[in-house]
This record gives sequence, structure tokens and C-alpha cells, in this order.
Amino acid sequence: MKVLKDYLGLYTDMYQLSMMDTYLKEGKHNCIASFDYFFRKIPYEGGYVVFSGLSELLESLSELKFGKEDIDYLHKQKFDSNFLDYLKGFSFTGNIYSVEEGTVVFPNEPIVTVEGKLSELQLLETYLLNTLNFNSLISTKAARMRLIAKDKILSDFGLRRAQGFGGLQASRAAIIGGFDSTSNVLSAKLFDLIPVGTMAHSFIQSYDDELTAFRKYAKSNPDKTVLLIDTYNTLESGLPNAIIVAKELEEAGYRLRGIRLDSGDLAYLAKAVRKKLDEEGLSYVEIVVSNQLDERVIKSLLEQQAPIDIFGVGTNLVTGNPDSALDGVFKLSMCNNKPRLKISENIKKVTLPGLKKIIRYTDDNGFIQADAIALKDEEYINKMYHQFDKEKSKSLTGLNENNLTRLVAEKGSIKIKIESAEIIREKVKDNLSKLPEEYKRFEFPHIYKVGISEKLMKLREELKNNFTNNKQI
Amino acid sequence: MKVLKDYLGLYTDMYQLSMMDTYLKEGKHNCIASFDYFFRKIPYEGGYVVFSGLSELLESLSELKFGKEDIDYLHKQKFDSNFLDYLKGFSFTGNIYSVEEGTVVFPNEPIVTVEGKLSELQLLETYLLNTLNFNSLISTKAARMRLIAKDKILSDFGLRRAQGFGGLQASRAAIIGGFDSTSNVLSAKLFDLIPVGTMAHSFIQSYDDELTAFRKYAKSNPDKTVLLIDTYNTLESGLPNAIIVAKELEEAGYRLRGIRLDSGDLAYLAKAVRKKLDEEGLSYVEIVVSNQLDERVIKSLLEQQAPIDIFGVGTNLVTGNPDSALDGVFKLSMCNNKPRLKISENIKKVTLPGLKKIIRYTDDNGFIQADAIALKDEEYINKMYHQFDKEKSKSLTGLNENNLTRLVAEKGSIKIKIESAEIIREKVKDNLSKLPEEYKRFEFPHIYKVGISEKLMKLREELKNNFTNNKQI
Repeated sequence: MKVLKDYLGLYTDMYQLSMMDTYLKEGKHNCIASFDYFFRKIPYEGGYVVFSGLSELLESLSELKFGKEDIDYLHKQKFDSNFLDYLKGFSFTGNIYSVEEGTVVFPNEPIVTVEGKLSELQLLETYLLNTLNFNSLISTKAARMRLIAKDKILSDFGLRRAQGFGGLQASRAAIIGGFDSTSNVLSAKLFDLIPVGTMAHSFIQSYDDELTAFRKYAKSNPDKTVLLIDTYNTLESGLPNAIIVAKELEEAGYRLRGIRLDSGDLAYLAKAVRKKLDEEGLSYVEIVVSNQLDERVIKSLLEQQAPIDIFGVGTNLVTGNPDSALDGVFKLSMCNNKPRLKISENIKKVTLPGLKKIIRYTDDNGFIQADAIALKDEEYINKMYHQFDKEKSKSLTGLNENNLTRLVAEKGSIKIKIESAEIIREKVKDNLSKLPEEYKRFEFPHIYKVGISEKLMKLREELKNNFTNNKQI
Repeated sequence: MKVLKDYLGLYTDMYQLSMMDTYLKEGKHNCIASFDYFFRKIPYEGGYVVFSGLSELLESLSELKFGKEDIDYLHKQKFDSNFLDYLKGFSFTGNIYSVEEGTVVFPNEPIVTVEGKLSELQLLETYLLNTLNFNSLISTKAARMRLIAKDKILSDFGLRRAQGFGGLQASRAAIIGGFDSTSNVLSAKLFDLIPVGTMAHSFIQSYDDELTAFRKYAKSNPDKTVLLIDTYNTLESGLPNAIIVAKELEEAGYRLRGIRLDSGDLAYLAKAVRKKLDEEGLSYVEIVVSNQLDERVIKSLLEQQAPIDIFGVGTNLVTGNPDSALDGVFKLSMCNNKPRLKISENIKKVTLPGLKKIIRYTDDNGFIQADAIALKDEEYINKMYHQFDKEKSKSLTGLNENNLTRLVAEKGSIKIKIESAEIIREKVKDNLSKLPEEYKRFEFPHIYKVGISEKLMKLREELKNNFTNNKQI
């Protein structure tokens, strides 16, 4: 993306360059291959992942280049001039097939397939994983909060605790997952998000007394004041002072937007504050809370019927805590027109060979029921098999099928409209509304069924059986 | 830092700008103030934090500016022209006092103090927290692995699972904490780190058989080949093929550098591989392992006497998993020449007022024993008090004292030499060698004593007592 555009060539692992160098020497760099992006484990012991990061990936394809400084650096790393010449002329020319950004996805599905010259795919791998894994992790986290918070306002306050520059991506991913706004000004500018802010304790401390601080802020921001009321004593000091200022604002023809609670027992305080505000005729003043929130705290606060209007969420949103990464991988599925397989002693780690697509099945009410992974050219399939147990199958007759896999980049050029985060958020909302409740609960969610077609199962069997003597011909 | 230099003005929270706007309207933006950076909780249930990120912060000070695009954006956000004119001329002109990067630090210590014009400090806050919190988190994680791994080689393989662009900072922070090298090429270039790489499963799969893949890679990289031997079957296929290639390399006058294990029981496999390699006269071939490593897995592998030479660590290093953030905060301690306090119902959240310094006490063997936080102008102190219990004190007589706090930026300009990550790593090593063992163990580490001087304690008491009627005059 824009901020890193002059740096993306080297945004990769060293071994990608070493392998590319070997491929070039072997004349193998332009072999046509394909890789699948998929993950194995859903974070948060949840029932779904919200796929995001695709727009960033697509917009970066044209930035995968090597400038003079990069070439000089690699020269010092002892790469030879043939390889450096190759890199000087490098551009990504492959095709990308993907599900739409904002789609709910499940383990082992080939969410993105990249097809093209072997060396180009290898170079792309690290950045692709870095961006898709992280964006999807955060959009999933945000979606979990959105589902619990229902129509309350959710705002991202996380930049100060984000993992360095990852905060830039986190704020966009949070909006995609269902957040309304962010405190992060740069991300708001870069991705056209809504920037918001209240005030800090330091603002209040910088004045000799709290009431003066409140008055000064309100004077400067009469139409958007949210007063932080816990600097000294929430109920004895912050709240009475906020009420004074709210009434002064009324006299001046304005309305206090809200008060913020950032410490203490948020449920108890929100109730006490709401009661007092209502008694004072200030029922329009909203209550904002922050302080180590996550989806479980929000759930608990709402179960206690805490009268909270806006949740400001930081650390646990932008870092995905307690899961710090989505475990997505990028695995070779075709090379030189031949389907490829990675064998493993762990049956769950054997990859799915060949060019594939995802078909999603819905019932007549539009609820999603199951996904089948099929070979790209397969037409109608009426039955799918368990991925690791061929004795188990599920009939698909009577269900409506939707092909989720679409061409999103062709010969290196973007083939779809890049949507805003807010439009993608609508897709997430729509996707989640079609996912039955049992997949969305926090505790032991139902496991969504993802099967494979008979043809794909047979291809994998055949390749496994042919694999003798370390060969996979 | 360089990659974000045109974007740092807006790399902040919206409320910083709103507060700055109010300060400007009140003529208060140039009030002299100071803020302290400190954290409250050590991550990983550990006994120390390795402070890092200072060089990045200092080098970014001159980049805190607003370009035309930024101003246009803020204009759209309804900031008035007075404020926008102020931002056009903005530059950071404050002083920064800090402990050295690479120092071990403890909860509640004012690690960094920034002194200067109130609005400049407010703008800096978000970026300062974002970078110091994350860099210190990762350097601490890396240091934990370094202490356990002793003189084994540690390499960062994490970029693909890093939190987006945070990966750029993580690789440098890992080196500071004690890692030897990184797979991350861009960070290696930006921060002069050692880039390394082996090969991926896809490289092997792209050939019809494993032996051919090994031969081709070795041919292209005869002096630095590390063969990944678990693609098909580690002991039955990967290892015998690696031995063939090692012997072929010997005939050509080279030596196979190593083999890598990326799955399965790493202790068992490493032992089996080592035995076979030794039997074949290949005792120089090193064993590299990777796959979801962290300090506890490394500890277990070494306790099992697994003959591993190099650990490649990814996700758990670069994301700091299971702790995703250091909880560092930036709190006002002076404003308008008056010491400032944040009161809280939780005694542990009451801040320390005034300009302060950290004094570290060592015994005659050089081991560190305690830290005292004192007011900046205090000379010799012979006793320190518990931070939250004035009945508890500790004598400091007979210990050697070192002032950890030094001026690192003056009027916005860097006053110290910016050191390379490798030099800072030496400081970390030295610091950790002086930290007694009981603070370094994983389980229930001893709690390092951080006290406050009598003068500081009295100042805090006085401000608390004066605080009546919401005033802190």
C-alpha cells in the first residue's frame, strides 16, 4: 500500500530470493505454478474467520518492484548480476482468484489462489501472508465484538498499543469487521474512515481544576464534546462538573455529546451516571466507556444492562489478543501443469492439489449450510466428502450453490472494483446474518462443514499413491 | 522512521489534535510541561522488560510534520485555519530524558520523560507509545529466548505471521533482545541486520523428486545450503537425500551448512538426525529447527538435550504471543512549572509528580539490587520507600549508585549517538548479566525493588492532600 510502496520488493523473506535465484539459474523461474492461501485454525476458539486484506494485497501488486537501493543492497548480499538484472525488470504478472473481501471463511479452504510464474509467486508469498493473516485476524476480532454489541457504537482507540506500524492496517480491518470509527488519524485519511476523539486525562490535569478544563474544552468544541469524568473522582467530581458544563452548553444552544468512563466498575458507574444525567434532564448525553475492553467484557456489560452507548476498544482489538496471529499458509498446488501435494505424517497437513474453487451452499432462507472445495472445472456436484475421512459424506441436493471463487487479478492487473472499508463492512454484516447462530456463539461454536468433491478426493488419493520413492510424478 | 517519514504528523489519535486545537485557542499550547513514559505490568509473567525503540523514536522527531495533504485532510475534518496554520509550522522542539536503549527496566519507572511545549508533547504521545510499547515487548520476548538458548543461534523467521507492517520493527527489536539474524530482508537492509534463509517446502515440491531439488539448490548455493528435510518423510527420505548431497558437496570442495526440521517431534528427530549424520562423518552439518517455537519450547528441547544448533522462531517472537502489548502509558507530571498528579481510587494508579530520574544501585560484584526514583535535582539518597506503603523502606548505604536518566534530545535535536541494533544487543547482554538469576526465571520470578525517594514521596503526599474540591493547586 501507499505508505510502503517504495519498499515492497524487499518486504519478503531471504529464502524467497535464494530460491528465485536458483530457479533462474535452472531456467525454471517462469514455470507456471499455483499456490493456495488457507488457514488451519480459527482464532479465539471461534466458529468463523472474516477474510480481509485483499484490497491491500491487490493494490500492492504493482508495487512489487526493486529500486536501485534494493539492487545495491542485494548485490552486497552476494547475489549475482544475472539475478539482479532479473530483479530490475521484475513485475508481478500472475492471476489471482479469491473469495470476496468480507466473506466468512473456514479452515482449509483455498481462500486465495495465485497462479503464474513460479518466481513471482515465491516473491509474493511473504507479503501476501503478512497482510492477509493480520487483516483477517483483526476483522474477525472486530466482527466478534460487533455481533455482541448489536447496534451500539464501537470505536477503535488502539493505535498506542498496536504492534508498531501494524496499527495502520488494524484500524481499517476493525472497520471492515464492524467498527464505526477510529481514533487513528492516518488510517482514517488513508482509508477514508471516520476519525473520532474525546479528551485525555492530561488535558484535565493541565488545568488547575476539572471544571475549568471541561469548560475550556466545551468552549472549543461545543458541538462534539465528550467529557472524561474519571480523572479525580467519577461520581463526586467528574459527573457534577460535567452536568454543570452540559447545562452551560444548553444555554449556549448546544448539547453535550457524551461523558467517558475509563476506569473503575464500568457497569456500576454507567448506571449511576445514567440515572443522575436523566434526573438532570440530560437523557441525550451519551455514555462512552473504555479500558481493556474485549468481546467478553462487552458481553458482560450488556448482560448487566449497563446503559452504555459507545464502546472504545484498544489493545484487544488492534492486536487480536489473546490470539496474535492467524495461521494462514501459502502452499504449492500446481507446478508445470501438474498438481502438487505436500505429504505429511499428519493427515490434516496433507495439502489439496490442483486448481480449485469454493462452492457455498445455502438453504432456501439464505442461511449458509456447507462449503465444498472442488476442482476448478467441476460443474454441479451433489455430494461432498469429509476432508480426512472418505467414509463420511454429505448430500448437497436441495441446496442452492454459489461459487465463491472469482478472478480478482489477471496478468498482474486488478480485475475488480476496490471497495471502501465501509462497503466491505456491509458485506461482512450480510455474511454474518446468513451464518446460523450456532457458529457465532463464543463457547464451543458448531463446526462448519467444509468438504471436498469426489474428483478432488480421488486426485489427492492418486497423487498420494503415486508417491513412492520420494517422487510425485 | 524512514519508511513512514512523510506520514508521521497524522500518526496520532484524533483527540490529540482536538486538545491541541483547544490549547491553541486558550493560548496554552506553549505552556511548558513534562510527561513520563512508564509501564505497570511486566509481560510474560516475567521479572524484567528490555527497553527498546528509543532510536526509532529519536530519529522520527524531525519527521513530526504536516504536509499539504495532511493539512487538506484536517481542513475537511473542520479544524479552523488558525490551527492549521499552527500545524503548518509545527516542529518538535522539546527535550527528552531517557534510560539507554537496551536497559532492563521495571514497572512504574519513568523510563522516558519528555519536557517541552504542551501541544508538542500531546502530539508525540501516540507515536511514542506505539513504538516504545511494541519494540520493548519484542525485545523482551527475544531476551527471554536468548537467556534460555545460551550460545545457540537464534534466527527470526516471523515476517509472514507478524502483525502487518509491525513486522518491520519486530525484526530489529528481536536482534536487540539477543537474536542473531532475520529472514526479513527489508528490516535487514533498513537496520543493518544479518539476513538469512533456507528453503521452503514449495521449492522441493516444485521438482519431481526431493533429491533433485536438494541437488539443484546445493548447486546454486554451494557454500550456504540448508536443506529442509521434512517435506515427504524426514528419516526415510529427507535425511538420506541430504546425506547424498552433503557427500556430493564434499567432493566438489564444499560443506553442507545444515539441515532443517520444520515438523514432527523435534527432539526425537534432531537426535536421530544427529546420530546418522555423525555416523556418516558429517558432524559439521548443523541442525536447524523451526515450527511454533517459543522460549518454553526451546527450554524443553534443550532440557531433552536435543542436539540443535539453530532455532528459527516466527509467530511467538514477532507478535510477542501470548502477550500482545506492553501496557506503557504517558502521563503528565509537570505543567506550567507545577508538579501534576493523577488521582485514582486505585492507589497503584496514582502517578508520580515532578521531574524525576532513576538511580540504579549495584553491589560490589556489579549485580543490580534496586532502583530508586528521585526528583531530578536530588543528590545522594541513602534510603528509598515502597511506592505504595510509606511504612516500608530500604537502606541504600553500601551500594554503588548509577544515574540511568540522561538527556537524549535537546530542543528537538538528538544528543546521543544512535547505535546499531547489534551494539544495543551487547548492552542488553551486559544488563542481563548483571541481573541476578532469580529475576530471570520463568516461574514466579523475584520482584525487583523499585522505590521512591523521601522527597518524591512527600511531594506526592502534599499534592494529594492539597487536592480538595477537584483542585490541584
